[in-house]
Amino acid sequence: MSKGKRRQKKHRETPRTEPGSSPGSLVLDPSAPPPVVTLIAYSDNTIEEKTITDPAQLPGYLNKTWPVVWVNVDGLGSIETISAIGETFKIHSLALEDVITSHQRSKLEMYGDNYFLISHMMELGEEDLITEQVSIFIGRGFVVTFQDGPLDCFERVRERIRKHLGKIRTVGSDYLAYALLDSVIDCYYPVLETYGERLEILEDEIIEKCNRATIRKVHNIKRELLVMRRAIWPLRDAISNLMRDSSDLFTPDTMIFMRDCHDHAVQICDFIETFRELGSDLMDVYLSSASNKLGESMRLLTIITTICAPPTVVAGIYGMNFNTERSPFNMPELNWFYGYPFALALMTVLVIWVVVLLRSQGWLGNNSHAHTGRPGN
Amino acid sequence: MSKGKRRQKKHRETPRTEPGSSPGSLVLDPSAPPPVVTLIAYSDNTIEEKTITDPAQLPGYLNKTWPVVWVNVDGLGSIETISAIGETFKIHSLALEDVITSHQRSKLEMYGDNYFLISHMMELGEEDLITEQVSIFIGRGFVVTFQDGPLDCFERVRERIRKHLGKIRTVGSDYLAYALLDSVIDCYYPVLETYGERLEILEDEIIEKCNRATIRKVHNIKRELLVMRRAIWPLRDAISNLMRDSSDLFTPDTMIFMRDCHDHAVQICDFIETFRELGSDLMDVYLSSASNKLGESMRLLTIITTICAPPTVVAGIYGMNFNTERSPFNMPELNWFYGYPFALALMTVLVIWVVVLLRSQGWLGNNSHAHTGRPGN
Amino acid sequence: MSKGKRRQKKHRETPRTEPGSSPGSLVLDPSAPPPVVTLIAYSDNTIEEKTITDPAQLPGYLNKTWPVVWVNVDGLGSIETISAIGETFKIHSLALEDVITSHQRSKLEMYGDNYFLISHMMELGEEDLITEQVSIFIGRGFVVTFQDGPLDCFERVRERIRKHLGKIRTVGSDYLAYALLDSVIDCYYPVLETYGERLEILEDEIIEKCNRATIRKVHNIKRELLVMRRAIWPLRDAISNLMRDSSDLFTPDTMIFMRDCHDHAVQICDFIETFRELGSDLMDVYLSSASNKLGESMRLLTIITTICAPPTVVAGIYGMNFNTERSPFNMPELNWFYGYPFALALMTVLVIWVVVLLRSQGWLGNNSHAHTGRPGN
Amino acid sequence: MSKGKRRQKKHRETPRTEPGSSPGSLVLDPSAPPPVVTLIAYSDNTIEEKTITDPAQLPGYLNKTWPVVWVNVDGLGSIETISAIGETFKIHSLALEDVITSHQRSKLEMYGDNYFLISHMMELGEEDLITEQVSIFIGRGFVVTFQDGPLDCFERVRERIRKHLGKIRTVGSDYLAYALLDSVIDCYYPVLETYGERLEILEDEIIEKCNRATIRKVHNIKRELLVMRRAIWPLRDAISNLMRDSSDLFTPDTMIFMRDCHDHAVQICDFIETFRELGSDLMDVYLSSASNKLGESMRLLTIITTICAPPTVVAGIYGMNFNTERSPFNMPELNWFYGYPFALALMTVLVIWVVVLLRSQGWLGNNSHAHTGRPGN
Amino acid sequence: MSKGKRRQKKHRETPRTEPGSSPGSLVLDPSAPPPVVTLIAYSDNTIEEKTITDPAQLPGYLNKTWPVVWVNVDGLGSIETISAIGETFKIHSLALEDVITSHQRSKLEMYGDNYFLISHMMELGEEDLITEQVSIFIGRGFVVTFQDGPLDCFERVRERIRKHLGKIRTVGSDYLAYALLDSVIDCYYPVLETYGERLEILEDEIIEKCNRATIRKVHNIKRELLVMRRAIWPLRDAISNLMRDSSDLFTPDTMIFMRDCHDHAVQICDFIETFRELGSDLMDVYLSSASNKLGESMRLLTIITTICAPPTVVAGIYGMNFNTERSPFNMPELNWFYGYPFALALMTVLVIWVVVLLRSQGWLGNNSHAHTGRPGN
Repeated sequence: MSKGKRRQKKHRETPRTEPGSSPGSLVLDPSAPPPVVTLIAYSDNTIEEKTITDPAQLPGYLNKTWPVVWVNVDGLGSIETISAIGETFKIHSLALEDVITSHQRSKLEMYGDNYFLISHMMELGEEDLITEQVSIFIGRGFVVTFQDGPLDCFERVRERIRKHLGKIRTVGSDYLAYALLDSVIDCYYPVLETYGERLEILEDEIIEKCNRATIRKVHNIKRELLVMRRAIWPLRDAISNLMRDSSDLFTPDTMIFMRDCHDHAVQICDFIETFRELGSDLMDVYLSSASNKLGESMRLLTIITTICAPPTVVAGIYGMNFNTERSPFNMPELNWFYGYPFALALMTVLVIWVVVLLRSQGWLGNNSHAHTGRPGN
Repeated sequence: MSKGKRRQKKHRETPRTEPGSSPGSLVLDPSAPPPVVTLIAYSDNTIEEKTITDPAQLPGYLNKTWPVVWVNVDGLGSIETISAIGETFKIHSLALEDVITSHQRSKLEMYGDNYFLISHMMELGEEDLITEQVSIFIGRGFVVTFQDGPLDCFERVRERIRKHLGKIRTVGSDYLAYALLDSVIDCYYPVLETYGERLEILEDEIIEKCNRATIRKVHNIKRELLVMRRAIWPLRDAISNLMRDSSDLFTPDTMIFMRDCHDHAVQICDFIETFRELGSDLMDVYLSSASNKLGESMRLLTIITTICAPPTVVAGIYGMNFNTERSPFNMPELNWFYGYPFALALMTVLVIWVVVLLRSQGWLGNNSHAHTGRPGN
Repeated sequence: MSKGKRRQKKHRETPRTEPGSSPGSLVLDPSAPPPVVTLIAYSDNTIEEKTITDPAQLPGYLNKTWPVVWVNVDGLGSIETISAIGETFKIHSLALEDVITSHQRSKLEMYGDNYFLISHMMELGEEDLITEQVSIFIGRGFVVTFQDGPLDCFERVRERIRKHLGKIRTVGSDYLAYALLDSVIDCYYPVLETYGERLEILEDEIIEKCNRATIRKVHNIKRELLVMRRAIWPLRDAISNLMRDSSDLFTPDTMIFMRDCHDHAVQICDFIETFRELGSDLMDVYLSSASNKLGESMRLLTIITTICAPPTVVAGIYGMNFNTERSPFNMPELNWFYGYPFALALMTVLVIWVVVLLRSQGWLGNNSHAHTGRPGN
Repeated sequence: MSKGKRRQKKHRETPRTEPGSSPGSLVLDPSAPPPVVTLIAYSDNTIEEKTITDPAQLPGYLNKTWPVVWVNVDGLGSIETISAIGETFKIHSLALEDVITSHQRSKLEMYGDNYFLISHMMELGEEDLITEQVSIFIGRGFVVTFQDGPLDCFERVRERIRKHLGKIRTVGSDYLAYALLDSVIDCYYPVLETYGERLEILEDEIIEKCNRATIRKVHNIKRELLVMRRAIWPLRDAISNLMRDSSDLFTPDTMIFMRDCHDHAVQICDFIETFRELGSDLMDVYLSSASNKLGESMRLLTIITTICAPPTVVAGIYGMNFNTERSPFNMPELNWFYGYPFALALMTVLVIWVVVLLRSQGWLGNNSHAHTGRPGN
Repeated sequence: MSKGKRRQKKHRETPRTEPGSSPGSLVLDPSAPPPVVTLIAYSDNTIEEKTITDPAQLPGYLNKTWPVVWVNVDGLGSIETISAIGETFKIHSLALEDVITSHQRSKLEMYGDNYFLISHMMELGEEDLITEQVSIFIGRGFVVTFQDGPLDCFERVRERIRKHLGKIRTVGSDYLAYALLDSVIDCYYPVLETYGERLEILEDEIIEKCNRATIRKVHNIKRELLVMRRAIWPLRDAISNLMRDSSDLFTPDTMIFMRDCHDHAVQICDFIETFRELGSDLMDVYLSSASNKLGESMRLLTIITTICAPPTVVAGIYGMNFNTERSPFNMPELNWFYGYPFALALMTVLVIWVVVLLRSQGWLGNNSHAHTGRPGN
């Protein structure tokens, strides 16, 4: 069951575009849920929040009465709705195509004066990492966001707008865009924290009592870190470009906050790299540790075999049934007065000799060791 | 058979140019099929599509009546045809040499006002990755494409032209060039998708029941990803240069589409890198997993040997044939009243002692372990 | 116990920020100790050093009477104090948020004319590396430093101010900032020196008598070097940016010292990289060395088994109890006159034959070896 | 013999310059063969080709009668000749020093208006890669080439000049320089092609029947690819610099050809990197494959040992010689009516039990496996 | 002893600076030898060479009579001397601090019009690599060099000055600086040559008869190459910066020589990288080779055990002492007429069967192999 689920998810990881199809043509993922469009329009002292059922209502909010209008589209299952919103906010068809094609690369693009940004939310589900593509379209006076999955980390931003927390209500759409992007980036921290804890537990596990499940866990973390890296790395560059481009959509004041946002993205990249290196180190530690255990098993096996071999051969020889009566050469030892004590003594001497030999050679007896174990160089 | 085929293909992977031969001299691959030249000339409201048998027909289409003329050459087996087309469209001899030399590096070059672009189509055949070199020569009012193999991903572009889908009929040769390049790049996605699925299946296989065939499969994917990377990486840079060069052949509008194309190339590079890292990780996982299985075999072998060794030695000793009648020292145990129960008890005690010892040392008994297994640091 | 401690520390390694919370909102780590605020104000010939209990006292020192005022805040457990200091020195709320959020990335930011720098002190504790975040806020005539942990490497700077050592009393706040940053960077050297010594000891240990504790020690050093790298790498870039920005806050004279500081940071980065590579090399050496030991064990085991197998089989055969009286075919050897010497001779011949065979094949007998051991290529 | 040869070659790989000796001082390799100086002077309609014995003849060709003069020096065993040529063409003493010091880095340097280029020819000898340093000195109207070894890939260029092929006779010394450089670069392709084929054969060999000779072959290819990379990588940069510098020595037309040359160098770098990665992958494949084979051996050994151990112990027990007449406890089984069938049945039951156990645990019986083989994560 | 020595050296590898101490404060290494100051002042036709005992003599040489004055300080054991020289030549206190602190990073710094350069000499001692820090202070008309160890590669430069070899006497202090730097860089070649030879010997050793000493030797070379890299890499950048800065201290003519010097540094970096890669490759080769040997041992062991197991069990069974007289079921075979031949035949048949089985499965019998050895992919 778990496997089936994972495979299904992966199927969608590379975006399906029919080779050679017309660019900007909107082909929906048939399993996408119907869109829920919510609008929050606010000024310093008023706020209106409602669910939009007919996109035709939207243009009414774009006149000058509302300094900032935020339209959030949750679920991408209706071409009509998305096209209507696209037309209302003059979103380029290529941008709309990116919006509905999941597993896009994070990026920032300018279409005229407006910015189009693709990013990804992350959350650790019960088994796997859950990702959701968030497309943010930023224009003067409005922000449109599209989400293609069940995650939502925008709720606290809504709270800040509703409760007039901080300065969000007093500034423009650029600050709202920053706040949303910051929310997206901040949701990477809990995931990373969990991975950090897991790696630490695995670190103990890998030395004490490692089995194939442990190896798989390390591998899974490394694989999911790859997914995260593919999401955050280009986002970092996108924000960096945004800071350098400096259109007049973003005020210098918001830019200071954007710098903070960029700083977080860089930090997340750092953590991902560190964790991936830690994961690789753990694999090395496992290999070394397994090699050590194998060597110890081998040593024990060799010692036991080496010690038991001589008495076994001796006992085997004196267990032969040669007829002592036919010839004085046929195992006369069997008739000796001290034959048995002699045989036991012989075995004991052999065992002691082997043990002394093994011990003198560092418990494991090899001739080259005595000469090469302490290399001159 | 499969090997022979693969080897044959590789033979041609490094382009053969005789060292020191004159540049721009056209030497054909003798196995190349004869060229099939097709022409599509179109304007907003007319379209003419025909197969050209005599290249001398071509110049007739280059007057001003047709806004865009697309000549596609499929198969590179005739120097005359290719030279004639080269002369008609004023293609530099170095470019023509690149066209007929397979396995060229992807690149973009300017010859005067015209662009010359080399790219590669990909498709997964039954056994191996099939690549085909596509050379695109872009001038004002015309596009010439050369394909050296059996693949074709341009059919959907032809459909769009024939059926007047999208805006392709209303814009110039720059947009046609974009559409063709986009088709080439889009054909990488299904291949990558298949690799992604295969890697996922291999991931399960490698832990459960890995054999040498699994290792070979992982290696094959990694090797073919190298081939893909060598094709797409320089193409990405080529498109990036195209966007920066901004000649007036490409309109700003087409440039927005070209940016989308570049974005796809970047994404494909990302996927290839990710998949290659996943492949390497799988090798590591396999090594760790195999090391784990080996350790378990070893542990079982050591336990069995260690447990069976003492009773074997004891049984061997009492299986010796010393003559008990000759001497009271010769195996008096054999005549003891409780001799046999004593021997069995001795064996049992030895086995129990060994088992206790193994258990106390973590099932595998080594002296250093008790002290070092839980390092202070 | 040690594990609990380590885990606890890691928990805090990724900074906790609630996704979507208002930027610049100050949320304290509840376990942070209450702040101790100390002030040192000095000119060339006077100095005042006192502990500030009420931040309201601070503004009094910011008039022109004191050329340099240094406020050090040790412990970040009070929002009121930190906010008050922030207001006094006009520190941006985002900077203050960074101050109280531990495990920030090292960075340099400009807020207006003032610089804000985050760096990290390091010290090797009994078990682990202890890090402490140091935030330095530099303005004209003042420096404010925030420390969130128990380490302190500023004492020698205080000494230099108190005792009028060097030129620190005669120059401005830029030189003080340099002196503090230099102290932070210099505290990396003893840590690196210890790691260098440890790696050298481990290098001997890993070849002579390696066990799992050794592997863990190497891994721990590598992991802590990752922590150090994450701290110093961005700091190096930050100082590099500072040198390039060249605001007029830093005099050219101080810049020469800052260059020295940058040089140290670069050197520390070099050492960290070198030590990490050494650590990886040690893992490789361990694997090779363990593989060598395993091969030697295996060789001994194979030799012993191979030598003992033939006499064991022979002794087993002559230990069978076939009734020689019933048939002349039933083990007539047992009744031969030289039966026993023959059996012993047979064993000896077999053993010698095996030994000769093993020796002729390089002590380990494999057929392919004789042909392929000395490859033509 | 082969070893001696290789070692000798390596001895010369790092150029010998006495530390602190005067720069530009010419110290010959005593084993260098005496120089053979050939001159080809040509214009569009005349050509003169001769072997120069006295360098004093050369200045006579440098007047305006010959548009292009090409002097090729094969073998660097005479200081007088080389100095005389150096003086004739005004070659800087540092350049001359580089010419006679073998194993220089590929590079392009300007001395006044003239270019000085160092490159390396490659050819696969019977055993090893043979390299030869080619120094090209390019001035207006002349090209001087120095070769220090037996290879020659300039013959086809000479043919083109002699037979008036292509446009080489009609253009200047810049085009000749290009043609020579192109010859040098083109001679890398056959070498790479051979490596590609070898790697492919090794790929099959490494999985089917790998031995130490195979490993050595892979290693040798990787090592020789390092040599090639060291030769072509800086050459690529050198050509890239040449294209950017754009002195007026090179006409725009020749620059188009130079771009083609640069493209080839880039492609060769790509192939080298790809082949090196393939070589590393092969090593990984070998390790995995060997690990797999080892695991299979181990599994068989463990199964055999585990199955045979119980009957051996049982047979050993019933092979003891306790005197059944002395006591009813002494092996009464030996006198049982069904004693022997019972013993055989016991052995059979034990073997079946072991087989069932092994089978139930995935043929290899370990307790942890049943619980952990199918990890939840 | 060797260990003690090495450890001692490493202790000093990270420069000791007390965290927070005043910059530019001179703290001597107590073990440093007393300085020997030698002066060479020369013009085109005169030269004066003497050992300076009192630094007060130096200023007398700095008037215009001597075009170039070279002061060499060998041994850094006296603060007074070094300070006096520092004052005479106006060397910044930070530069002086760097001079006496060993194991500095190579670097180039400008102090006013003067250059300060730190580099490192290398020489292979009997056991380890010996490094010595060389600080070069370059001003108009003078060069001051400080050496902190026993190496000296400046002798040949002195010879050139004394004997008026080359143009060194006729040019300024910039050329002297170049000559000294060139000497330092040239002394890397013999070290690299030795490493190259050692690696080649190790390459043979590692496949033929590798033991732990071999591994250690490879590791030592890799470690010392790290030391070299840390010395030459930043020096290369420093020279590169020097060439770009182009102050008027260096004439264009000297710059051409400096370019040669830079070229050597780049080449040394290349060699170091190549040798490090070769070292890593050797480790891989060793692991593969050891894995191969282990597999061969294992194969032999498995074959022997598998072949000997059946006859051992059979012999064990017929060695049991069941009383054939009590029951017809008790080992009737023992009394068969052909009992013994039957037993021998049974053993032979079993052995042949096992051998056939092993052979049919590629000598090593595993069921999966026959099906999967030739994977379809």
